Amino acid sequence: MRVGVIGLGIMGAPMARNLLRAGHEVVVHGRRRARVDPLVALGARAADTPAAVAAATESVVTCLPDGPDVELVVTGPDGVLAGATRGLVVIDTSTIAPDTARTLAARSAEVGVGFLDAPVSGGEQGAIAGTLSIMAGGEPDVFARAQSVFAAIGRTVTHMGPAGQGQMTKLVNQVIGVTTLAAVAEGLTLAAHAGLDPEAVLAAVGSGAATSWQLQNLGPRIQRGDWAPGFMVRLQQKDLRLAFAAAARVGVALPATAVVHQLLASVEARGGGALGTQAIAQALEELAGSGPQP
Amino acid sequence: MRVGVIGLGIMGAPMARNLLRAGHEVVVHGRRRARVDPLVALGARAADTPAAVAAATESVVTCLPDGPDVELVVTGPDGVLAGATRGLVVIDTSTIAPDTARTLAARSAEVGVGFLDAPVSGGEQGAIAGTLSIMAGGEPDVFARAQSVFAAIGRTVTHMGPAGQGQMTKLVNQVIGVTTLAAVAEGLTLAAHAGLDPEAVLAAVGSGAATSWQLQNLGPRIQRGDWAPGFMVRLQQKDLRLAFAAAARVGVALPATAVVHQLLASVEARGGGALGTQAIAQALEELAGSGPQP
Repeated sequence: MRVGVIGLGIMGAPMARNLLRAGHEVVVHGRRRARVDPLVALGARAADTPAAVAAATESVVTCLPDGPDVELVVTGPDGVLAGATRGLVVIDTSTIAPDTARTLAARSAEVGVGFLDAPVSGGEQGAIAGTLSIMAGGEPDVFARAQSVFAAIGRTVTHMGPAGQGQMTKLVNQVIGVTTLAAVAEGLTLAAHAGLDPEAVLAAVGSGAATSWQLQNLGPRIQRGDWAPGFMVRLQQKDLRLAFAAAARVGVALPATAVVHQLLASVEARGGGALGTQAIAQALEELAGSGPQP
Repeated sequence: MRVGVIGLGIMGAPMARNLLRAGHEVVVHGRRRARVDPLVALGARAADTPAAVAAATESVVTCLPDGPDVELVVTGPDGVLAGATRGLVVIDTSTIAPDTARTLAARSAEVGVGFLDAPVSGGEQGAIAGTLSIMAGGEPDVFARAQSVFAAIGRTVTHMGPAGQGQMTKLVNQVIGVTTLAAVAEGLTLAAHAGLDPEAVLAAVGSGAATSWQLQNLGPRIQRGDWAPGFMVRLQQKDLRLAFAAAARVGVALPATAVVHQLLASVEARGGGALGTQAIAQALEELAGSGPQP
């Protein structure tokens, strides 16, 4: 299949590589030449605009930082819809507001284009390995037509309902993930200041009812002060803002997650926006006394 | 070995059964006849006081609700130390303050008795299956002498350091576990009010970086409104009070866990102290509007 990829960052570039590896004809567009060229070297074709990508392909994957970026790429003057022919499928893997996804799906439908909100979980590692978890919202027939693309980039693909429900699921995922991380960070900060052996703590706590992906994967990083992303604080904060807005729309309060958001705001305020989310432990350390350090 | 068990509740009774099954001679003491008799029927001997249990055994396992209970059973007039001979090992599997455990270890050492703080994780299921995770604090030689008892009741046994550090590890475990549960409850409340399919949410979120024991085990209970314990809200609250006190002693703030404690306080205030901790979702529901219900 001829597949476009627009947005060639940490997540988009490995998706494009996996689509090439699966035998698709891939057309890419990105604002930075340094990100386009390596994919061209692997066999992709470069296009100058999103419209040109759409004109040359049957499916277009977008992977962009935020809602306004996706709106511009899809509905802008040189956007996907400007170049699309009827029957094109747009698969937006960005994390954006459910309402924005619903609007883009409606705009796409007006010109005979299928649109799926299909945000992903699994991070850079999952994107590279092609093992992302994909949460999709949109029409069932459009979802069915996206299967060969999904198969190349992800492992678990769940159809969550109509347009916007993929994004809503991703926001649920982000709420649960980051607050689980805060649980780990508070516990490990207590453990460190109490003088407990780091490895013994992970062994004891990691074998029972308190274990989690966050504990297993980010716990050791917190213990050794490794703040490299992973998933950046400022992107997590963007996702939480979307989550609070979506929660307010359906009438739900998220009090523990609100505290987590504020702790991460402190990390950002101290210049840590590009650190991994596990840097939430830095905020707890700022609040703590001078006992043993983590 | 001759092993005593004092405290025959949800956790203590299955520990006594597993000690019998492992071939130990078991002497039990509990305040309620209805809990003693079934163990006698399985081959245990009943003793009238903790002192009498201690006089008849080489190791004594205590499994009691809180610190004052353990202090009374160990150091009271008819307590374990009143009946103990030198060389007895006391294994306290209750969750109590690290400071109390340190005091009891010192008092025991004065009369030649070894004392381990050995709180457990894994709940009633783990106690029944003999697969508890045990976090032990105390002298290495006493820890070594407790191995045959640990082998009968648990699977993962971690020596966390000197007296009190087993309890400290358990408090770390409780902080991480309950705040992870709050993460799950907030996410699933958002999902329910947004109209997402419960099973699809668990499939999508449970396969990625937001997964946890709490999500896998208590997520489905939250979704179907099953509030049976599991682990009771009022015991979790007791453990969190111990955790906040211990955290204050070492100079650590636990802001997200504090919010979780208050949400559970609301569940208790509304009569839910004997519900399972997953009833934290009830507090979130009280805060929410009238969208789709979980």
